[in-house]
Amino acid sequence: MSNRFSFRLIATDGAARAGEIATAHGPVRTPAFMPVGTQAAIKAVHHDEVRAAGADIILANTYHLMLRPGAERVAALGGLHEFMHWPLPILTDSGGYQVMSLAPLRKVAEAGVTFRSHIDGAVVELTPERAIEVQILLGSDIAMQLDECVRLPAERNDIERAVQLSLRWAERCTRAFESAPDGRALFGIVQGGDDQRWREASARALVGIGFDGYAVGGLAVGEPQDAMLKVVGETAPALPAERPRYLMGVGTPADILAAVARGIDMFDCVLPTRNGRHGLAFTRFGPINIKNAHHAEDPRPLDAASRCAAAREFSRAYLHHLFKAGEALGGTLLSVVNLFYYQDLMAGARAAIAAGRYADYVAQIKEQWTAKRDLQM
Amino acid sequence: MSNRFSFRLIATDGAARAGEIATAHGPVRTPAFMPVGTQAAIKAVHHDEVRAAGADIILANTYHLMLRPGAERVAALGGLHEFMHWPLPILTDSGGYQVMSLAPLRKVAEAGVTFRSHIDGAVVELTPERAIEVQILLGSDIAMQLDECVRLPAERNDIERAVQLSLRWAERCTRAFESAPDGRALFGIVQGGDDQRWREASARALVGIGFDGYAVGGLAVGEPQDAMLKVVGETAPALPAERPRYLMGVGTPADILAAVARGIDMFDCVLPTRNGRHGLAFTRFGPINIKNAHHAEDPRPLDAASRCAAAREFSRAYLHHLFKAGEALGGTLLSVVNLFYYQDLMAGARAAIAAGRYADYVAQIKEQWTAKRDLQM
Repeated sequence: MSNRFSFRLIATDGAARAGEIATAHGPVRTPAFMPVGTQAAIKAVHHDEVRAAGADIILANTYHLMLRPGAERVAALGGLHEFMHWPLPILTDSGGYQVMSLAPLRKVAEAGVTFRSHIDGAVVELTPERAIEVQILLGSDIAMQLDECVRLPAERNDIERAVQLSLRWAERCTRAFESAPDGRALFGIVQGGDDQRWREASARALVGIGFDGYAVGGLAVGEPQDAMLKVVGETAPALPAERPRYLMGVGTPADILAAVARGIDMFDCVLPTRNGRHGLAFTRFGPINIKNAHHAEDPRPLDAASRCAAAREFSRAYLHHLFKAGEALGGTLLSVVNLFYYQDLMAGARAAIAAGRYADYVAQIKEQWTAKRDLQM
Repeated sequence: MSNRFSFRLIATDGAARAGEIATAHGPVRTPAFMPVGTQAAIKAVHHDEVRAAGADIILANTYHLMLRPGAERVAALGGLHEFMHWPLPILTDSGGYQVMSLAPLRKVAEAGVTFRSHIDGAVVELTPERAIEVQILLGSDIAMQLDECVRLPAERNDIERAVQLSLRWAERCTRAFESAPDGRALFGIVQGGDDQRWREASARALVGIGFDGYAVGGLAVGEPQDAMLKVVGETAPALPAERPRYLMGVGTPADILAAVARGIDMFDCVLPTRNGRHGLAFTRFGPINIKNAHHAEDPRPLDAASRCAAAREFSRAYLHHLFKAGEALGGTLLSVVNLFYYQDLMAGARAAIAAGRYADYVAQIKEQWTAKRDLQM
């Protein structure tokens, strides 16, 4: 296996792109969806099912892993791939986003961010250098720069300050990453809130620094879909065509389809597993809330034609029963169903882009969501 | 597939027996361990793993299923095998034991037992006839008579009364079971507490009524192992050699090995899955509490030579992390490890009995539990 990180475009269809990332742990076909393994585990799902669904790469959260079990411990155990027994590519975020959303008493300064661990209250400092050190210790194939993400809506001043700080951190991350072993990649993160001028300035400056790939950050934080897509549509063209583009934390199937049309190559989101654990199945016929009473006596499977055995083999009545009875197996099965759904959605997108019919693909998917409403019931 | 229920002895070694039960849903190799699927699901474990572990048969709890989703609903959905998508044999208990242990405001009378549902407080009556009707609706391969189980220690009067009532219920169950479809089996349950005289009287009377198999009930309710084994050792010889013998709710690996030596053919217990969810792994080297801090940096698998992939592939450090981090996958993986362990223990017992070296097998298993103590640490 080559140790080199690279990206090649295979096909484009309008702004939509199909490609392949090469990593030391194997290829990632794009557009790619990365299941989220926050604490080195995809919640309630066995690794084998994640692979069977077709995931080429997963995401793990630096914030959680640096606190427990600790980056140095993971490194001593051979790195994250060996620790969690996941042989395929792994992307780690920088930890910054979770510090902002989870840690109490966080304080952002030029040097970095200081916070209290949500686990034991210990005071922890996360600098750009430490964020990179942790990710090198974890051994992820793709590391992310530390950035500051502002909540939307935000004042122009706050956006400007966060963009400028994130850019200085980006430079420091790049320098810190020089010590990374061969084959590891570092992505920069475009910030700028909903301000097109700052998004473009952020993108331009990051490209000037030079990264292996570029993420669009600070979205999927509660803003309406059209606001998110507007930023994506304006930011993607400012990023180099020959590098992968990653839209962080997105999203619903509709979000992903629309972002792919705007030139995004990579996605991560907790939705397939979180919604699965809460009884919501993504299917070709649209979302199905299996806890609804009308499923209690329905002998039909979620989708008799699914590639996923759980969607084909178990009746809606049984899945409904598992949730009503509080059996964890229900959440596991629906998470698996959803991971298969998301991966099949991406595989379909890749094939459609290669065939030059991506718009038709999206139209067809959306038509099925609404046309077969009886199959949602 | 033959529709006939039958049992044939393949080998004996002292009192230990190896055999095979034939059912409409396939064979059950004995001595057999039945994983417990209380609510039509083995807790936190996918059916495929239960089968891969080697289980020929599972147990489901009538009490839970009659309350939710309801026996009539399961029947309308094709019976329990189809409802839960489990194609192999299923044994259902009568519901009586769970009424005694779970339901509030229970009242035992000649007609049956009345109780409030622990789910919605509804008043439910479980008569011998209804217990059989429910099990016929569920479609289990092996149904159990309704009985009354007294708590130990018990007064002689209480034991006598419970034995006599259980025998009258046994007769009523037999009559009710005449309407069962071909191929279904009904087991009687020997009661009598720790009183040898009443155990023998109960066994004799049940054999007089005539059942497809015989269970030893009222044990594994907190009494010491030697008290349990004494009853088993005195009761098994009073049961016909040509029928399967089932020790309900037992037990630890040591309990099972000792009961097999006394002529028991079938077991069920929540231990492998319950302990697995609580971080306790059964291994060749004895039990391992994966939550103990000294596992945090241990790169060794639970058992590199296990037939179970989870025991071979994941490090103790990773399994420890999953429990510390509250990841449900940890409980799933250890439950699977334990189900494989129990099934391998039974497979080894069957082979040893067939080879006439069961005592050696037990000695060897126990020697490994103590000799390799460093592998428990």
